[in-house]
Amino acid sequence: MLTKFVLIETSHAGNVGGVARAMKVMGFDELVLVAPRWANVLKREETIQRASGANDVLAKARIVDTLDEALDGVSHLCATAMTPRDFGPPACAPREHFSGLLGSDQERPTGVAFLFGSERFGMRNEDVYRCHACLSIPTDPRFGSLNLAAAVQLIAYDWRQALGGFGQVAPVAQEAARVPADAKAVAGMLQHLEQALVAIDFLDPEAPKKLMPRLNQLFNRAAPSEEEIHILRGVAKAMLQTAERARR
Amino acid sequence: MLTKFVLIETSHAGNVGGVARAMKVMGFDELVLVAPRWANVLKREETIQRASGANDVLAKARIVDTLDEALDGVSHLCATAMTPRDFGPPACAPREHFSGLLGSDQERPTGVAFLFGSERFGMRNEDVYRCHACLSIPTDPRFGSLNLAAAVQLIAYDWRQALGGFGQVAPVAQEAARVPADAKAVAGMLQHLEQALVAIDFLDPEAPKKLMPRLNQLFNRAAPSEEEIHILRGVAKAMLQTAERARR
Repeated sequence: MLTKFVLIETSHAGNVGGVARAMKVMGFDELVLVAPRWANVLKREETIQRASGANDVLAKARIVDTLDEALDGVSHLCATAMTPRDFGPPACAPREHFSGLLGSDQERPTGVAFLFGSERFGMRNEDVYRCHACLSIPTDPRFGSLNLAAAVQLIAYDWRQALGGFGQVAPVAQEAARVPADAKAVAGMLQHLEQALVAIDFLDPEAPKKLMPRLNQLFNRAAPSEEEIHILRGVAKAMLQTAERARR
Repeated sequence: MLTKFVLIETSHAGNVGGVARAMKVMGFDELVLVAPRWANVLKREETIQRASGANDVLAKARIVDTLDEALDGVSHLCATAMTPRDFGPPACAPREHFSGLLGSDQERPTGVAFLFGSERFGMRNEDVYRCHACLSIPTDPRFGSLNLAAAVQLIAYDWRQALGGFGQVAPVAQEAARVPADAKAVAGMLQHLEQALVAIDFLDPEAPKKLMPRLNQLFNRAAPSEEEIHILRGVAKAMLQTAERARR
């Protein structure tokens, strides 16, 4: 779905770079700047530095004079604001809003724009009024000062997740392959370990004090694989051999 | 719940400030820096500028030399890494991991630490190995370059949301008889066990073959209690004594 990030009257060039990077890691690349403080903001050193490789987003970015010019192709506008405005659209948390927006009981928008106000003053009332929703990122009521690029990062993340993400994280091969050994294998290992603990004088067979049931619980929680059982049996064997040498 | 953000060998002071701000907007204030590039990083101009008012987080932050010193009181360690490691903990998306971690079918951790590697090199393998999970923020497979403060922002947001956000009270932990030992206690037990395994000739220090990372993962899954740590250290001690006798 067409997704635009629209920065209105942004004053810090570094933030524009940070925003480009934040968008790109979440797979978005449509950035529009409305009346930024610096006309050459896309070429400034701080911008390029903070973009950290998201140069294609900067190269593709548009600079326009008015919000109207930024909104072609989008049918759903989300303001972002710390404080909702009287007469403005309903305030909502991004995650809930996105799941409603993409739910089946509603027409899906043709495109979505996320609007961010200036670092210092936030969004103007009249810009908020035109929006369909006012996204309020849930922050600590005592300190809600989100950096602009951080706010874009959170919205981009939630929106990407709502759109279905990038597919599964590839599981680690060895982890996927870890099949817990069966209870018989665990019991065999514990018997082996018990002999070894007796041999090194840690376990007194006359006063076992629930040691083996405790270790059994511990290994049950770990759900060892066959390979791990093999390692633990190797440890038990080495303990028995060392105890044998100690007796000579 | 005790929540620490641990930055390992961070090189950019501005990022430390950005991290403090990102934490504070989500209501977290426990920051630990392990061997940062600048000893005076908490007082540097860029730090304070990017912190943008999160000065109390900087004031409270601790600087330590080793990861061990950062982990008191936490029982669940989350690595953050782009690429999962062989023999490391399972890779997972933060949101799913957090909901599992706080779900009712599992013991809740006493405290959680989120570990972030250096900007340039990410996390070291040996630091990842100690963790219970390897969080992988879902980013565009073609451009996964998240800024450090942005990564902290996303994790802090998801974790805060998983804890119930700011509106609601976090769900009360179920009365659990067994409290997991903290990561520092587990690390100490593993070091003790490693010595013992060397002493009984099971572990060859010249060819360790990932034995300790494997055992670390196994014990992480078991989440041993203080009492169980005590038992396992007793086993290690008996192994060392037996090996000592065998040498005579």
